Amino acid sequence: MPNPTAAMLVIGDEILSGRTRDSNMHHLAQAFTRHGIDLREVRVVADDHAAIVAALRALSEAYDHVVTSGGIGPTHDDITAPCVAEAFGVPIGVRDDARALLQAHYDRSGTELNEARLRMARIPEGATLIDNPISAAPGFTLRNVHVMAGVPTVFEAMVASLLPTLTGGAPVLSQCLRLMKGEGEVAKGVGDLAEEFDDLQFGSYPFQKDGIYGTNIVVRGTEAARLDAAMTRLAALFAA
Amino acid sequence: MPNPTAAMLVIGDEILSGRTRDSNMHHLAQAFTRHGIDLREVRVVADDHAAIVAALRALSEAYDHVVTSGGIGPTHDDITAPCVAEAFGVPIGVRDDARALLQAHYDRSGTELNEARLRMARIPEGATLIDNPISAAPGFTLRNVHVMAGVPTVFEAMVASLLPTLTGGAPVLSQCLRLMKGEGEVAKGVGDLAEEFDDLQFGSYPFQKDGIYGTNIVVRGTEAARLDAAMTRLAALFAA
Repeated sequence: MPNPTAAMLVIGDEILSGRTRDSNMHHLAQAFTRHGIDLREVRVVADDHAAIVAALRALSEAYDHVVTSGGIGPTHDDITAPCVAEAFGVPIGVRDDARALLQAHYDRSGTELNEARLRMARIPEGATLIDNPISAAPGFTLRNVHVMAGVPTVFEAMVASLLPTLTGGAPVLSQCLRLMKGEGEVAKGVGDLAEEFDDLQFGSYPFQKDGIYGTNIVVRGTEAARLDAAMTRLAALFAA
Repeated sequence: MPNPTAAMLVIGDEILSGRTRDSNMHHLAQAFTRHGIDLREVRVVADDHAAIVAALRALSEAYDHVVTSGGIGPTHDDITAPCVAEAFGVPIGVRDDARALLQAHYDRSGTELNEARLRMARIPEGATLIDNPISAAPGFTLRNVHVMAGVPTVFEAMVASLLPTLTGGAPVLSQCLRLMKGEGEVAKGVGDLAEEFDDLQFGSYPFQKDGIYGTNIVVRGTEAARLDAAMTRLAALFAA
């Protein structure tokens, strides 16, 4: 059975303006690969209502899972939750269990749960909460969309909360052969082998070190024996 | 006049599998912001013909410019150039001026311009070449799509070659106020100010340092005087 597919939607002006360098995409890509979920597409959009709703609809139709990152804080530009509600045509409001989580969190530090913070308890109808052990304000899952925070430590904690609830496929294994030959030197041999082993993915990643061109050949697949066979052939091909 | 808009299409299995962490998006976001071009959307797709063609068509229709990164090397999984040709319905073949650039480059190092390397001279009909001072194999512009390498040093050199040919708008200026108050504390005040200064963008970026919650408020816009006015109001608001 093929692995489940997924897409990610990163929401935030700060990424597109170059102020912040996103790290959540890389974290999710690695976590999903280990869990046997194929991340097929990532989109980054601005804090823009129409853009978020359109992307949510397109991605949730095309893939088994969609993970969003960003836009669930207490400020005026945090609009992800109402956008998810709109994308699926369900109502949204402050939910008692989410409010209780926030109340307990702020009570511990003697902080007021004011109107702005209460925005973080707005949950679309029918959603399941995703645990946030760092700062309490929960993420949520509505149908196949998993809504998470943008702050990397919180995002990563939410991924850890979410993953055990998702059915994964076979983890994708990979092996790498480092060749001190330019990509153009090895391209034909690698291409022929990729055609022969068409159940595996062959990637070719050039590098330059001390003025010498080299290439990392990465082979990915779910069956260890097939990977071993391909790597043996690869090594023999470029042993000279 | 509003600034020109742009999208970026990152092509590569290695990003989606988590093997490689993309850095080109962050570089382009900063370069475009300085140049007065609004990067509105980024998509990352796999080395998949149908996915690349669909994304190229959608993005080139929706934005003034599209920059692609990756998939123009010599190997079997480098399929960006033929995908661009297909997206616009034009033929593609090895072009003499591109072949001459490669021939000169490889002659200098006594390397053979073999069949695999010659793939890098395939240019869709009607395209303009983008200079690659690092490794010769050119990028190209076809209509509003600018096709560049994925290797960061080459991508960055190509951005430097491309930018002077693009008409920019007013560079987006930004100022930042660092507050040692949690985001939920300042959210209402910032939101009210954002409504009043609706020609500016207000972003709010929480951080945690030594157990204390703080928030960076970033204000962006193209008129320095308006930015100054907003920052003065912001500072007064949270001076207490």
